[in-house]
Amino acid sequence: MGYSLSHAYGAAFDNPNLLVACVVGDGEAETGPLATSWHSNKFLNPVHDGAVLPILHLNGYKIAGPTVLARIPRDELEALFRGYGHTPYFVEGDDPMEMHQLMAATLDLVTSEIQRIQKDARANGFKTRPRWPMIILRSPKGWTGPKVVDGKLTEGTFRSHQVPMGEMSHPGHVQILEEWMRGYRPQELFDQAGRLRSELAELAPQGSRRMSANPHANGGLLLNDLHLPDFRGYAVKVPVPGGVDAETTGVQGQLIRDLVRLNPVNFRVFSPDETSSNRWGAVFEVTNRCSTAEILPQDDHVAPDGRVMEMLSEHQCEGWLEGYLLTGRHGFFSCYEAFIHIVDSMFNQHAKWLKVANHLPWRRPIASLNYLLSSHVWRQDHNGFSHQDPGFIDHVVNKKAEVIRIYLPPDANTLLSVTDHCLRSRNYVNVIVAGKQPAPQWLSMDAAMVHCAVGIGLWDWASNDTGGETDVVMACAGDVPTLETLAAVDLLRKHLPDLKMRVINVVDLMKLQPQGEHPHGLSDDDFDLLFTKNKPIIFAYHGYPWLIHRLTYRRTNHANLHVRGYKEEGTTSTPFNMVVLNDMDRFHLAMDVIDRVPGLLAKAVGVKQAMRAKLVEHKRYIEKNGEDMPEIRNWTFHGVNTP
Amino acid sequence: MGYSLSHAYGAAFDNPNLLVACVVGDGEAETGPLATSWHSNKFLNPVHDGAVLPILHLNGYKIAGPTVLARIPRDELEALFRGYGHTPYFVEGDDPMEMHQLMAATLDLVTSEIQRIQKDARANGFKTRPRWPMIILRSPKGWTGPKVVDGKLTEGTFRSHQVPMGEMSHPGHVQILEEWMRGYRPQELFDQAGRLRSELAELAPQGSRRMSANPHANGGLLLNDLHLPDFRGYAVKVPVPGGVDAETTGVQGQLIRDLVRLNPVNFRVFSPDETSSNRWGAVFEVTNRCSTAEILPQDDHVAPDGRVMEMLSEHQCEGWLEGYLLTGRHGFFSCYEAFIHIVDSMFNQHAKWLKVANHLPWRRPIASLNYLLSSHVWRQDHNGFSHQDPGFIDHVVNKKAEVIRIYLPPDANTLLSVTDHCLRSRNYVNVIVAGKQPAPQWLSMDAAMVHCAVGIGLWDWASNDTGGETDVVMACAGDVPTLETLAAVDLLRKHLPDLKMRVINVVDLMKLQPQGEHPHGLSDDDFDLLFTKNKPIIFAYHGYPWLIHRLTYRRTNHANLHVRGYKEEGTTSTPFNMVVLNDMDRFHLAMDVIDRVPGLLAKAVGVKQAMRAKLVEHKRYIEKNGEDMPEIRNWTFHGVNTP
Repeated sequence: MGYSLSHAYGAAFDNPNLLVACVVGDGEAETGPLATSWHSNKFLNPVHDGAVLPILHLNGYKIAGPTVLARIPRDELEALFRGYGHTPYFVEGDDPMEMHQLMAATLDLVTSEIQRIQKDARANGFKTRPRWPMIILRSPKGWTGPKVVDGKLTEGTFRSHQVPMGEMSHPGHVQILEEWMRGYRPQELFDQAGRLRSELAELAPQGSRRMSANPHANGGLLLNDLHLPDFRGYAVKVPVPGGVDAETTGVQGQLIRDLVRLNPVNFRVFSPDETSSNRWGAVFEVTNRCSTAEILPQDDHVAPDGRVMEMLSEHQCEGWLEGYLLTGRHGFFSCYEAFIHIVDSMFNQHAKWLKVANHLPWRRPIASLNYLLSSHVWRQDHNGFSHQDPGFIDHVVNKKAEVIRIYLPPDANTLLSVTDHCLRSRNYVNVIVAGKQPAPQWLSMDAAMVHCAVGIGLWDWASNDTGGETDVVMACAGDVPTLETLAAVDLLRKHLPDLKMRVINVVDLMKLQPQGEHPHGLSDDDFDLLFTKNKPIIFAYHGYPWLIHRLTYRRTNHANLHVRGYKEEGTTSTPFNMVVLNDMDRFHLAMDVIDRVPGLLAKAVGVKQAMRAKLVEHKRYIEKNGEDMPEIRNWTFHGVNTP
Repeated sequence: MGYSLSHAYGAAFDNPNLLVACVVGDGEAETGPLATSWHSNKFLNPVHDGAVLPILHLNGYKIAGPTVLARIPRDELEALFRGYGHTPYFVEGDDPMEMHQLMAATLDLVTSEIQRIQKDARANGFKTRPRWPMIILRSPKGWTGPKVVDGKLTEGTFRSHQVPMGEMSHPGHVQILEEWMRGYRPQELFDQAGRLRSELAELAPQGSRRMSANPHANGGLLLNDLHLPDFRGYAVKVPVPGGVDAETTGVQGQLIRDLVRLNPVNFRVFSPDETSSNRWGAVFEVTNRCSTAEILPQDDHVAPDGRVMEMLSEHQCEGWLEGYLLTGRHGFFSCYEAFIHIVDSMFNQHAKWLKVANHLPWRRPIASLNYLLSSHVWRQDHNGFSHQDPGFIDHVVNKKAEVIRIYLPPDANTLLSVTDHCLRSRNYVNVIVAGKQPAPQWLSMDAAMVHCAVGIGLWDWASNDTGGETDVVMACAGDVPTLETLAAVDLLRKHLPDLKMRVINVVDLMKLQPQGEHPHGLSDDDFDLLFTKNKPIIFAYHGYPWLIHRLTYRRTNHANLHVRGYKEEGTTSTPFNMVVLNDMDRFHLAMDVIDRVPGLLAKAVGVKQAMRAKLVEHKRYIEKNGEDMPEIRNWTFHGVNTP
């Protein structure tokens, strides 16, 4: 998949005694993620990081075609790797014995060079970015394999990809295989009984020096729990639901700051230059952006020992973080929601790895891969349509239920509780979606903790169906959908005070799935209790609405479920217009209720008319003023039930 | 998004008179796709392609952090771009008048260099890859903007990102804005009435020399229909359903070969080195892989004028193809199914672009973006779990229905028909999933054409419910699911001859959606006629099963729909074991029927027992023999109804 070099650097960060030798095939070297990963050397600090020795292996061919890097002149190749900041050492040839000696001598040379760099930096502190060595190894494809098969050159050509002599049923091919295998002179390697000669067997490394038994390759063995600050200490005071505003991810940023402070050698933040933008700026009170390249006085919090890893490559962030986690450390990836799709394919491989590793008893659990997705689909007033895509969630839920978790905290206190939970978890991929703009806060910390522990809950303070029959269930998942749902409830209570509504908020999206499909899934009885067996459900959801149907199609009351969400309508517009364009605003939700509660339309035709008029007024207002109507901007929740 | 340079090359291919100047920001230059796209120059032929002039713009900052390429020494920077195969020309400074002159002089220099290269190649033929010029432009971020705001250096720093003076409500900021704007000396640019002075207005290009009016920027204006061979000429003769085997994509490859032959200047094939692997080898009868880098005698069909664009970077293939389509040409992207997720984010942007362009009346339609996804999830006997992911379809269906189409042809003749349709279409993204291994062929060309025109159909030759009541609907979409469904029908007819089954095959996945959701969607009446209103439906689907639920949850008979598909179970195993691991094999499908047809279990408990025993036998057999049981490998369809 071509991501190995960024993984290698992730493994080397904060591992001062580790040398990661990373062989890069010339095929994978053509991929984009690999092509930019060479620049990882601008983020490696010889004082407290280990070293990476990249070995570019040029054998000249992919499956069928030649590779790019094997077909450029030597001066260009050398210039390229000097340009990437390395000193390249060439190991080239096709005589095995000569090549073994040349490789051994070169390895001695580059490891002493690496040791010199480290010794100097550790004695004298970091001065300037070193020019790390790397090796360019050029050897024939299918080296030492059959030279010619069926009259066609094979060694050194694409024909030696996979099985060089092709179908074994072909006459002569068995003989070629036999000659090839005899070329290894098995009579010198094995004794009469067919056992590997003991003097040779002894050459292999022992114990934890064996590659697969190296604890860095089973990072859970090295994993230490994080020192976690008490997340309740960052709580936003919410005397009454909707009574205060806060920047949700900004509050989380304070927790992240203290995590960085308390865990100086095994926790890092990774982001494509979005740490500040996603409101984690507090981390710069205790650390910096990492760079071992040139730093200028006007730079904002950049230092060679910074623990915030920012490069404008989601691939690089993902690869670094995976490498860091796989070697037993912890981290958090903060990204704009729409652009996390860039790592869809890398996420796939990590989730597949977790699924398989979960069933290998000798593999020790590693820290979960935690994503904060902010600057999300509903708040792209500056960037517009190109930045609107909540589909990473859909991509994630296709993977095995045992390894994936998705959280949509509606406010800061729920986000704090979810974050704490994710940081304690092991062997999951945790996706958290939360907004960064100032927004109303709903739950006190005590309420938030209960809500997050259950993952889904009836908000009685916003409901008015207690003790009576419910007319409609108002469900929501995500911060903006929660806001619009509560605003719709507010409107409906004002206009239709007899309507009995139940408000349900979903933090843990997997609660919606049947218990048999996901370990977090609600039982059917619990689901029916919450969502009723036969009342209309109006569900406002953060992402593509059909995901909610896909999660709930087996539930009793699915036929009455009506979901609003993002349906690829958007532009550079006001925040409220974004929800209007996707029919998820308070007025649409209220009209959905009027349309779907049996018998209500006849009584509420005037209310519905008024909602429609509001949407026309909204459109005219934003066209004229470029911002939302004051009644939208200044709206606060009034529907709280007093005890 | 960082893909602009590969788009620029896509625009330049086969456009001999076009010079594409492409400004690459130093932020986007950090992304993986951009980092590898510099190597596009190894695929550009000065004889018949235009030229690309990359202008790397170093302004030093992203949103908040410094950029990598602005912080490496000049000698590394120069080495990097020489290593990428360019001659870099530096334009650096901060005095506007000096910089204008320097830039103008440099542009004169590099364009004359480009002309020299082209003239030579066009007079003397292609000899060796030229060292194309590129420009490294270094200027301050926020250049000529406010120097200092609130006592903080702004021009030349990250602070000039977006709005350099921040909130306009802040005292003094309006004044800074005014001074800045006055710096442009508007009194010299506009007359008394506020009109741009005519001598200045005349400097702007006229007519189609204006950037947005350039026909290359509205490629539909330049689009010529493809010369399409008659796809029926490649038909596989299918005297009886299941009577012959063929490599489905291999047959398609013959059509692609003739497309290349008939359209020598406006059709190319793009693939990450999978053209041969995906069985399109026939194209090499008429063309080659493209490379202007070094070519060796043992290379397989590589030439500087090849029309098969292979680089091991899905990003590069996607960017090249998009650029080629956007400038009015045609192409096809052939990829392994699992790895097409690598371009999820690029697909997103193209689909969003199409959606918006569709509603701009002056934008002329362009050729559709066509994907062949092969080496698919069900046939990874060599590669295993890491190569198994059919989720690109799920990703695609989240985009606007008006621009996306998904086809799952079950055999070669349906694939030919679908391919012809996709090549004639405009402004869509067409995703075709088809296998490359020898597989039974079901439909004659006449039958295939009717089946594809309708997109979904009842296969009466495989059904036995004519004239009577249907007991169960056996639906399938995809080649392997179709095979297993027909094998299940075969088994059930043998064991339970009274069972009345209806076989439905889906080629055009969007037929399943409600008419209101997708223009291809079946009406509810038609859906009910095919799938019945109340009989069990056993649906074998190529991808993640829940997608079928998401497409059909509003249909009358959804409660009786039972879907089998890929559920993330797999390894390096036999082909049949892959379907067994995911419960989509003939035995599981037959047991599903027995379990779900009311009253059948009581009569068929022995049959179910036999199916279970077969699965045990299968497991034992493959463990011992490493291949599938003969009855699986040699199975042919026997259930054809004779007229």
